[in-house]
Amino acid sequence: MNSYEALIEKVRKFNTDRDWDQFHSLSNLAKSVSIEAGELLECFQWDDEHFDKQAVSEEMADVFTYLIDMADKMNVDLIEITDKKMDKNIEKYPVDKARGKNTKYNKL
Amino acid sequence: MNSYEALIEKVRKFNTDRDWDQFHSLSNLAKSVSIEAGELLECFQWDDEHFDKQAVSEEMADVFTYLIDMADKMNVDLIEITDKKMDKNIEKYPVDKARGKNTKYNKL
Amino acid sequence: MNSYEALIEKVRKFNTDRDWDQFHSLSNLAKSVSIEAGELLECFQWDDEHFDKQAVSEEMADVFTYLIDMADKMNVDLIEITDKKMDKNIEKYPVDKARGKNTKYNKL
Amino acid sequence: MNSYEALIEKVRKFNTDRDWDQFHSLSNLAKSVSIEAGELLECFQWDDEHFDKQAVSEEMADVFTYLIDMADKMNVDLIEITDKKMDKNIEKYPVDKARGKNTKYNKL
Repeated sequence: MNSYEALIEKVRKFNTDRDWDQFHSLSNLAKSVSIEAGELLECFQWDDEHFDKQAVSEEMADVFTYLIDMADKMNVDLIEITDKKMDKNIEKYPVDKARGKNTKYNKL
Repeated sequence: MNSYEALIEKVRKFNTDRDWDQFHSLSNLAKSVSIEAGELLECFQWDDEHFDKQAVSEEMADVFTYLIDMADKMNVDLIEITDKKMDKNIEKYPVDKARGKNTKYNKL
Repeated sequence: MNSYEALIEKVRKFNTDRDWDQFHSLSNLAKSVSIEAGELLECFQWDDEHFDKQAVSEEMADVFTYLIDMADKMNVDLIEITDKKMDKNIEKYPVDKARGKNTKYNKL
Repeated sequence: MNSYEALIEKVRKFNTDRDWDQFHSLSNLAKSVSIEAGELLECFQWDDEHFDKQAVSEEMADVFTYLIDMADKMNVDLIEITDKKMDKNIEKYPVDKARGKNTKYNKL
């Protein structure tokens, strides 16, 4: 078992031990990803340059934990679906058109 | 190289090929995590039960991609910081106090 | 009836005409505020300086519409509760301590 | 001066008194709307039915305060742009097609 699989197991056990799966519907987990993403953003609310590395790391961890939980409950492999989505992005943003531009794909 | 490390490499190459790292400051990536989290939430906006599994998977992938990019630029290991944050959560939510309750740790 | 009250009426009629109040639980409206806030943020995703004024205005309008709807369903006056919250903020951030600083009140 | 205009004045004075306009770029205010929207959503994180009315009101107030500030700095009238956006929505969601359905306009 590699470290990513061990982490999935740890998140699963954390929830089972606390009998929390009853609260963790996909909809509530999607809310939770958004809530934690807001807390991550708060680390950069008024200042883009200076930030608390420890605080940022912990908020990223919270977002990731809810993603792991959500993927587990949907029976999808987060790494696999992200790999596939990256393949779509590679097609949506052809290197020659997208290079050096921050334009959305539908306006390239 | 396992599949998670391969994914980090894929995200890195995607951005380098398009010369996009100039746009990917940590602050902009934190915004991006929030924006994609909002799109994930939109899959459950009016209905908690019925959802488009493919759409949900792709939005989760987008959130994850920005987390991976952010961790890579901060030189932190996303799995390691999440593992450490889980250890903190385990302490914050003792099983005997938190079991079956959806109460925030500071109100337990 | 001033223009703010007229707007509340317009939002109410919009939903009633479409029989949408059945979907507009407070929880779903809170999700909607977050989703639209994400779309507003997207206008500034990669560039803090240049933005599409029309697009920004419309996303602000969408956030505001859901706030109006939410306040209406909760039977609270959005202007009154905001006025009261401002009074709290005035106390939380005393001018002499907060002046020129972007520090959160609990760290002042 | 009606109560809405008085509130705009109050928000403006609050920021001027603290010399905070230097931090309140449109981009930072858009982040702030998202952050506060996340805190509003947190009131409904695990339970759609039971909520703290005072807490919900205060989080709505925070979102609204940043919207007011943003509109003021953009020199747009929040009520007017929302009224215009409602007119667009009325066209996007014709009553006979949208009635009783929670479908996005592009799928109606």
